[in-house]
Amino acid sequence: MTQTQNSPTQVSARLGANNYGKAEVKLMKVFRDTARHEIRELTVRVAMTGDFGAAHTHGDNTDLVATDTVRNTIYGLAKEGFQGSPEAFGKELIAHFVKTGPRVTGGFAEFTEFLWERLQVGGEGHDHAFVRQMPQRTVRVESQDGQTFQVTSGLENLYVLKTTQSGWEGYLLDERFTTLPETHDRVMATFVTCKWEYLDGSVEVDYDDVWARVYRQIQETFTDHYSPSLQNTLFLMGQAVLTACPEISRIWFQMPNKHHLKYNLERFGLENNNEIFHVDPEPYGLMEAWVERDA
Amino acid sequence: MTQTQNSPTQVSARLGANNYGKAEVKLMKVFRDTARHEIRELTVRVAMTGDFGAAHTHGDNTDLVATDTVRNTIYGLAKEGFQGSPEAFGKELIAHFVKTGPRVTGGFAEFTEFLWERLQVGGEGHDHAFVRQMPQRTVRVESQDGQTFQVTSGLENLYVLKTTQSGWEGYLLDERFTTLPETHDRVMATFVTCKWEYLDGSVEVDYDDVWARVYRQIQETFTDHYSPSLQNTLFLMGQAVLTACPEISRIWFQMPNKHHLKYNLERFGLENNNEIFHVDPEPYGLMEAWVERDA
Amino acid sequence: MTQTQNSPTQVSARLGANNYGKAEVKLMKVFRDTARHEIRELTVRVAMTGDFGAAHTHGDNTDLVATDTVRNTIYGLAKEGFQGSPEAFGKELIAHFVKTGPRVTGGFAEFTEFLWERLQVGGEGHDHAFVRQMPQRTVRVESQDGQTFQVTSGLENLYVLKTTQSGWEGYLLDERFTTLPETHDRVMATFVTCKWEYLDGSVEVDYDDVWARVYRQIQETFTDHYSPSLQNTLFLMGQAVLTACPEISRIWFQMPNKHHLKYNLERFGLENNNEIFHVDPEPYGLMEAWVERDA
Amino acid sequence: MTQTQNSPTQVSARLGANNYGKAEVKLMKVFRDTARHEIRELTVRVAMTGDFGAAHTHGDNTDLVATDTVRNTIYGLAKEGFQGSPEAFGKELIAHFVKTGPRVTGGFAEFTEFLWERLQVGGEGHDHAFVRQMPQRTVRVESQDGQTFQVTSGLENLYVLKTTQSGWEGYLLDERFTTLPETHDRVMATFVTCKWEYLDGSVEVDYDDVWARVYRQIQETFTDHYSPSLQNTLFLMGQAVLTACPEISRIWFQMPNKHHLKYNLERFGLENNNEIFHVDPEPYGLMEAWVERDA
Repeated sequence: MTQTQNSPTQVSARLGANNYGKAEVKLMKVFRDTARHEIRELTVRVAMTGDFGAAHTHGDNTDLVATDTVRNTIYGLAKEGFQGSPEAFGKELIAHFVKTGPRVTGGFAEFTEFLWERLQVGGEGHDHAFVRQMPQRTVRVESQDGQTFQVTSGLENLYVLKTTQSGWEGYLLDERFTTLPETHDRVMATFVTCKWEYLDGSVEVDYDDVWARVYRQIQETFTDHYSPSLQNTLFLMGQAVLTACPEISRIWFQMPNKHHLKYNLERFGLENNNEIFHVDPEPYGLMEAWVERDA
Repeated sequence: MTQTQNSPTQVSARLGANNYGKAEVKLMKVFRDTARHEIRELTVRVAMTGDFGAAHTHGDNTDLVATDTVRNTIYGLAKEGFQGSPEAFGKELIAHFVKTGPRVTGGFAEFTEFLWERLQVGGEGHDHAFVRQMPQRTVRVESQDGQTFQVTSGLENLYVLKTTQSGWEGYLLDERFTTLPETHDRVMATFVTCKWEYLDGSVEVDYDDVWARVYRQIQETFTDHYSPSLQNTLFLMGQAVLTACPEISRIWFQMPNKHHLKYNLERFGLENNNEIFHVDPEPYGLMEAWVERDA
Repeated sequence: MTQTQNSPTQVSARLGANNYGKAEVKLMKVFRDTARHEIRELTVRVAMTGDFGAAHTHGDNTDLVATDTVRNTIYGLAKEGFQGSPEAFGKELIAHFVKTGPRVTGGFAEFTEFLWERLQVGGEGHDHAFVRQMPQRTVRVESQDGQTFQVTSGLENLYVLKTTQSGWEGYLLDERFTTLPETHDRVMATFVTCKWEYLDGSVEVDYDDVWARVYRQIQETFTDHYSPSLQNTLFLMGQAVLTACPEISRIWFQMPNKHHLKYNLERFGLENNNEIFHVDPEPYGLMEAWVERDA
Repeated sequence: MTQTQNSPTQVSARLGANNYGKAEVKLMKVFRDTARHEIRELTVRVAMTGDFGAAHTHGDNTDLVATDTVRNTIYGLAKEGFQGSPEAFGKELIAHFVKTGPRVTGGFAEFTEFLWERLQVGGEGHDHAFVRQMPQRTVRVESQDGQTFQVTSGLENLYVLKTTQSGWEGYLLDERFTTLPETHDRVMATFVTCKWEYLDGSVEVDYDDVWARVYRQIQETFTDHYSPSLQNTLFLMGQAVLTACPEISRIWFQMPNKHHLKYNLERFGLENNNEIFHVDPEPYGLMEAWVERDA
């Protein structure tokens, strides 16, 4: 068991910011209190921060929580600690590791929740059968002390498209590299990714309800205006979310412009009245912005 | 321009079955006859068969249709030829290439259709805004002569799960390598992939309507019985489809058993009454079978 | 435990061709006979065929091998039965299930082998440290009786490119939908996927050695000629393989034409002498062909 | 063209940090000055920052650079501006947009470089034929003013494994949720992702050469010690990089512990002397740390 970290030929190095834990833990919980079951499915990552210097610099694992223990703990605590939102479960998890890990002082938990709807049978949602949906809910809970928490919630993989009421005009045209023609009628499509933070003091947030309100605002705002740019639609979505959710302080969006290019059919003697499109997978315009409450 | 295919040191080789064409053509068509738009999005592959020997063996491209031409043709014919189902569009495409390609005698077209639902706004489906769904529709149309066609339709990526009314018992236990305990209450989950063929003479098939009926039968059958095995559920699904769809001669399913493993919490002093599961991504049981009409 | 398969409203259905087993079993074997270790990593699928009618139609699991048992068996037999090639291991596996599964009469095993090279340290391959390579080896072994086997070997994910000595000319130009200009100097790039079959009676095939010869022939042939089409290069590769490998009866290739499109810089007052390319991920030309020994 | 952003029912919102640009631009450049060609392939993202408030809040696109123009510019500037490293090209791109975009004050460019090696023919690297490698090089160049730049370089997708000289012992065992046994001989495998920053004043960095040195140090360090933990190996890699590369101020690693679980063969009457492993895709331990120069 020879180690070379003290080799005289090596420069002196020190450990900077670091964390470790378990990622891609796949958890499903079935709530079966009544015959009408509920399910929640999460992919979980837990990372711990603290005094891990000796492990890194000298291979001394004393008092380290094994990542396998982290995995067991996630499943174990899910039994009692995962009753409501992933946000609340994240707080439970971090608080636990700060309490039980001798060297752990903080950490973060990240969740991707896969959404399931009840299967429709005879027009009604089934008691115990479900079908997976495409969008996902995301959560990140972070803490420096295991007692106070910074919560970020989000959604991903919501793919929306509209066939009209969108354009792109009035931009910089005198550039050597500009070849795109202006349009006031195009297909607009985007994968919405967003995340939001909460106002300080919002200790009693109903995270599930906030998520549902954000989800609805984003979809409805996507449809309620002529869009002169994805940037403007992004801003309007943010404003609608802040209006509907007083718990939220600010929201960030990442929205690719999934280009639907009108195929040039005129070459073949055919008209293309915004009917036939090439769905171009790449490259895509990519917009990122925070929309914040104007104090 | 030196070619080595006639090198004396090479054995004599001949061309066997072959085809070529264009794959991953991304097409969206917007139907805007009224203010209530419709959209259909397809990924298309078209492959041609015929007398392509000279191109392979001697690099002689005479009379060959370029794959770029195939691409243009898919977009061009979509304008007039894609009015209804992908199945009908596939026939148009193959017939076209047999007619216009001097060396083309047949071929096949394969489609993956991405499904979009209208965005719900105020409880109603929007006129021109849509949200992508997870399941996909598949189609394959093949022809040897450009006039008669073999059609296969299918669906993919339908992820269903039930939390009870499923078990696995009575199997072979005396095998050296058997360690799995029997159960009569487990979570059952699967990604349904299936494809079906049509009875000869079914020239007037309403392919869109058949697809909708299959889709509903599969979901409802998944819920309507205690499942002693994924194999039995597969068969019952097939039987239900054949019952609801007299147009279909036989249907094939591929269904992975996406294992949800009850996590051993007893080690930690906790009970696990089918509540806490590890969703194991792999390996998975995999079942494939044809279910056929009993003449 | 109610089952609906005998519902009077259901049509009469019968089970057609079917199989079941385990997929995505991830196996690594370390050969540590000497200090210079060897490793082989496989993803394994084993599917069994036989008399599985009662399980499908009546939920009767009697004498069925559980897929969990299949998993255990793959790891268990790897200890003694996986000494050489995946092809030989596949025969062991199928023979085992035919022998031990009361209802099993045949089946198939499919492998994807991930390739590892020794890490280079000081110019030499390390004894026990490895780095993953991109190409993969594939194997399929099938049997109807557990005693005679059909073996198919292959390779995947070999991405090769050449910057010159390739063109596409002389094709059909008078088609309404043809817009592509001819070229005698382009970038040619493809992901090679291929599989091959063996001559009957080749009972003593050294599968590892054949694979290495095919792998080398494909790479060298890619470079040794001006390519007038991907079809011609495909054929020449097949001919070279058949020449170098008398064990092989025929070989199939699937080769996408990963288009590298010369970007139009003339619009910006710049020349583009085959220097600046857009690497278009889709669509792509797709060629498939068998090259066979000319008896 | 009705816009709802001024609806009286909406709360007052303001735009926070934001950027936009083009992502997933696929660029290949062929250097053909001599018959021995060179190639470089990049996926490029360019994002601009600046005064984009009016576009977001009022749909006013005046003086905005279209993302399509960004795309054209990337290909156009590649002709003259991409002669050496992606890092230098990134500086060119950002400086260009700050200069030509009336509202642009800064931005960032991100690159993933795909690595190609010369195809080996007769033991020598070919002049113009190449084969794709698995690891990738990453670059991020950021600027607030278009004149001074923060450069981060990195590598990804380097999958290394060793079959011995690794263990995990001495960790916290008295935790309720600890079930993992200690070991001093295991398989260790990881996908190395890392990125590094440069010392201020290192204006004349040879980025390509630094990358090659880092790449070699990581591979060699992986092999040169008994690893008591992935954390310790991570630190030793960082120290080796800092020693070999005086240009680098600090380096960050993200290393998953790709678990190779010894399969329990004792249940089947077989020994498993670290020979037969299940390669578990998830969950995995995940380590992240900065290693910094000790001033």
